[in-house]
Amino acid sequence: MGEFPLTLRSLFERSQTLFAQKEIVSRTAAGVLRYTYGEFGRRTRRLASSLEALGVKRGDRVATFAWNHHRHLEAYFAIPCMGAVLHTVNIRLSPEHIAYILNHAESRFVLVDECLLPLLERVKDRLVHVEGYIVMAEGEGLPETSLQPPYSYENMIESGDAGCEFPGDIDESAPAGMCYTSATTGNPKGVIYSHRGIYLHSLALGSADTLGLSERDTVLPVVPMFHVNAWGLPFASVWFGAKQVLPGPVPAPDVLLRLIETERVTIAAGVPTVWTAALQAQMSVQADLSSLRAAICGGSAAPRSLIESYRRIGVPLCHAYGMTETSPLVTVSRLKSGQLSLPEERQLDILASQGVLVPGLEMRIVGPQGDVPRSGRDMGEIWLRGPWIASEYYRDERTREAFEDGWFKTGDIAVIDAEGFVRLVDRMKDLVKSGGEWISSVDLENALMAHPGVFEACVIGVPHPKWGERPLAFVSWKEGSEGAAGKEELLAFLEGRFAKWWIPDDVVVLQEIPRTSVGKFMKRELREQYKDHYQSGDGA
Amino acid sequence: MGEFPLTLRSLFERSQTLFAQKEIVSRTAAGVLRYTYGEFGRRTRRLASSLEALGVKRGDRVATFAWNHHRHLEAYFAIPCMGAVLHTVNIRLSPEHIAYILNHAESRFVLVDECLLPLLERVKDRLVHVEGYIVMAEGEGLPETSLQPPYSYENMIESGDAGCEFPGDIDESAPAGMCYTSATTGNPKGVIYSHRGIYLHSLALGSADTLGLSERDTVLPVVPMFHVNAWGLPFASVWFGAKQVLPGPVPAPDVLLRLIETERVTIAAGVPTVWTAALQAQMSVQADLSSLRAAICGGSAAPRSLIESYRRIGVPLCHAYGMTETSPLVTVSRLKSGQLSLPEERQLDILASQGVLVPGLEMRIVGPQGDVPRSGRDMGEIWLRGPWIASEYYRDERTREAFEDGWFKTGDIAVIDAEGFVRLVDRMKDLVKSGGEWISSVDLENALMAHPGVFEACVIGVPHPKWGERPLAFVSWKEGSEGAAGKEELLAFLEGRFAKWWIPDDVVVLQEIPRTSVGKFMKRELREQYKDHYQSGDGA
Repeated sequence: MGEFPLTLRSLFERSQTLFAQKEIVSRTAAGVLRYTYGEFGRRTRRLASSLEALGVKRGDRVATFAWNHHRHLEAYFAIPCMGAVLHTVNIRLSPEHIAYILNHAESRFVLVDECLLPLLERVKDRLVHVEGYIVMAEGEGLPETSLQPPYSYENMIESGDAGCEFPGDIDESAPAGMCYTSATTGNPKGVIYSHRGIYLHSLALGSADTLGLSERDTVLPVVPMFHVNAWGLPFASVWFGAKQVLPGPVPAPDVLLRLIETERVTIAAGVPTVWTAALQAQMSVQADLSSLRAAICGGSAAPRSLIESYRRIGVPLCHAYGMTETSPLVTVSRLKSGQLSLPEERQLDILASQGVLVPGLEMRIVGPQGDVPRSGRDMGEIWLRGPWIASEYYRDERTREAFEDGWFKTGDIAVIDAEGFVRLVDRMKDLVKSGGEWISSVDLENALMAHPGVFEACVIGVPHPKWGERPLAFVSWKEGSEGAAGKEELLAFLEGRFAKWWIPDDVVVLQEIPRTSVGKFMKRELREQYKDHYQSGDGA
Repeated sequence: MGEFPLTLRSLFERSQTLFAQKEIVSRTAAGVLRYTYGEFGRRTRRLASSLEALGVKRGDRVATFAWNHHRHLEAYFAIPCMGAVLHTVNIRLSPEHIAYILNHAESRFVLVDECLLPLLERVKDRLVHVEGYIVMAEGEGLPETSLQPPYSYENMIESGDAGCEFPGDIDESAPAGMCYTSATTGNPKGVIYSHRGIYLHSLALGSADTLGLSERDTVLPVVPMFHVNAWGLPFASVWFGAKQVLPGPVPAPDVLLRLIETERVTIAAGVPTVWTAALQAQMSVQADLSSLRAAICGGSAAPRSLIESYRRIGVPLCHAYGMTETSPLVTVSRLKSGQLSLPEERQLDILASQGVLVPGLEMRIVGPQGDVPRSGRDMGEIWLRGPWIASEYYRDERTREAFEDGWFKTGDIAVIDAEGFVRLVDRMKDLVKSGGEWISSVDLENALMAHPGVFEACVIGVPHPKWGERPLAFVSWKEGSEGAAGKEELLAFLEGRFAKWWIPDDVVVLQEIPRTSVGKFMKRELREQYKDHYQSGDGA
């Protein structure tokens, strides 16, 4: 077999030879735009030739700061196919982190949406490598901006060469893209995506056992193109010639529902909060969602009730798991043939798990005593390796903590059953490590929240002189149920559901449990504040 | 992304962790055997450890001479996963070619079916590298054989180590398999399949736009495992955990139909003659074929009428194209979404073509003046490159003729339409090259055979002093229609259907057109015999 390299050029060229007449739909500030893959291809070539004229060379990072639309899609191919690196920047990060990311990646140019100019203008003075801003705006000319120097994206398209040929000699291991992931503490960490990684990840998305993305699909990525390449959907869609529907800036739930209905979307993808909001909106919108064969749900675990609710309205919510470091597809929850005849309740249990490993990856579930048995009960951290799993963070010392012997240690704690279905149970940093054993904070929280009087519950590990750590629970009461139970009663409520040594040593009642700006419990702060709670040693 | 190699070990290991309970059905001389992927895996490991004990090392060629059954499947994984090379030998070749192939590949051991021992015994004295014969027989002990030294496959399984671990450090470009293809003249030519090539080819088979092979499928490879790895189906089936049905020695059409019915086969694959015979047999067998979602038809072009007949009985015959040098999947004929609403007749035209290029490959259609336009009329030779396309013949000077600048020149002549659908029209060697233009012998033959009196027609190119070559037609009459038309009348029958310069200069009537042992016209012999036919120069 030849030395034929696995690069994005193959994906792009196939769309041009086989699918030139197929449609791309893009919601922009100026309305819904429709064009063909043929037109997309010519504009992509023009963009690449104009970037080259600006001096962009192989290996250079070119950033995007944009919503999901056709211009962003053009950048998705023009930049890597010319040999440069597509650096997608998360528009929702703090100014500090945006500046850090652009500086750390040494991005030379930024393609920016007109509506996002103010966000970049706030940080422009801190950017040390950016040589120019390419403004993606509707209509002629350049909008007013303090970014210097600005270039007009549409002018660059106009002056570009539609006959520009992409090089055939790019190494498959060369970087094609990069994305930063937020860290618990400190600066975001950069992940490089190679041509080979994206190529193989795209094949995996087309695999009948994962999403089975095909020419016959119409794909709506609600997940932003600045989040792990919109889960790789734009790459696979171009390769396989699927119709694409790009929802543009700030897509509201009713807008998404209407797009699904009018464009006959077959695959849509978003995080659980998107699907929760869409379900809510559907009550009044009452869109026809019958075309939808898979509503992909990832980014964080979807509650079983959400999957159930969608099943009730005839939409298969498909649970997937992954992260920035994994391109992201790792597992997909899809019933095996032998499970299709199980009772409804049991099927929902399976569909609510994160699913099984997709072809091409290897996984270990590593507990305190090494690889855990496939019991569905024993907890371990998910370790991954494979052609689309990162092997390091870009120029970052934190590589040492997260990678070991070629394995990426996800920090996610899971159990795995005999059929290979994985269920997330906690984050590594939130586990309570007691006497060499692990206790899931999430499982305890869910059990406490099942108590009729409890509004919220949070469990952390607190240093303990004898056991290393012991669990400490926090609860807040539902309105009108204040003091509905004593500590003893609450802990008794947990007995029988867990091994004795899982039961927290103490419960602290709070008015409300402190949360971060994105709505998560501030466990780090609670751990710091309560670090001496068990130092007397009389807890257990 | 990491250096993670694309090797068959990934395919095998996934079947063991995810599909240990799934079934493999094997038709043997002793009846139908059923076992699980788990058992398959343990036996595969045992086989590998016993081969290692025999002295098999990385890179060594180990041959198989066998029908489609579970032992052959074990060899399919044990040999490449231990780092050796699975060399499948076509049992239907002449003794000369079998000996040539085993000697040329320097295969050290041969795994041979008990029922095929006589074929190998005939050639054993010519084999210079084979050190032993591993006999795959039912039951205990070794059958009588003059092959020396003989080993019992089942004894090797018994003494092997089920805990044998496959190495993780095999290079993805290392050879995993090899297969010889017959040449028009001279000895067969060897093709090497790399781990990477088989890995990517398997992903392509799982792609929703090709076969979409999945865990939910039950796969019946009628195509022999000694023909281009049974088109790669065993590799993909193991990876994705599909149930496999292996039809064993000399599978008759009624046996195949019954297997499809009883095992609820969803994908079956064979050459057109298999499907023609099965259609015939189905008249009396009347098997329930409703489980079949794709009857893959490849190896040579299927007549439109065959596709139509299967469509009538509710079985989608799926046309695919490929060859030994291409692993083999190159094109699959599947309607694009925009074609699903075309009239039945037009759909059949499309399904009767060879289809569109699968993701991952690149194709050129090269005519006498370079790449041809996508008109559906202009003829060119199919050139291919990609990760599962051969880049040379194994130690063979004929590499020079068949490969150019990284492209494999297939020798197949095709036209391509604007949608990218490819239709085979001839073999390069059978084309008539007249005045720098190409004339399809096959198109002329089909047109002549449409004449009511003509039984068979054959067209060849014959040297011509002015035009280089001109077409010469041969016809034989249907019984009772002898002399139904004069030469002038026959040629007039072609006018209007073809450009004037396509019309043959002469027609020769034969009692019967000579055929080779496999039923093809002996065009080479006719060309030799009639080489001076136009030397007078008065033909055109």
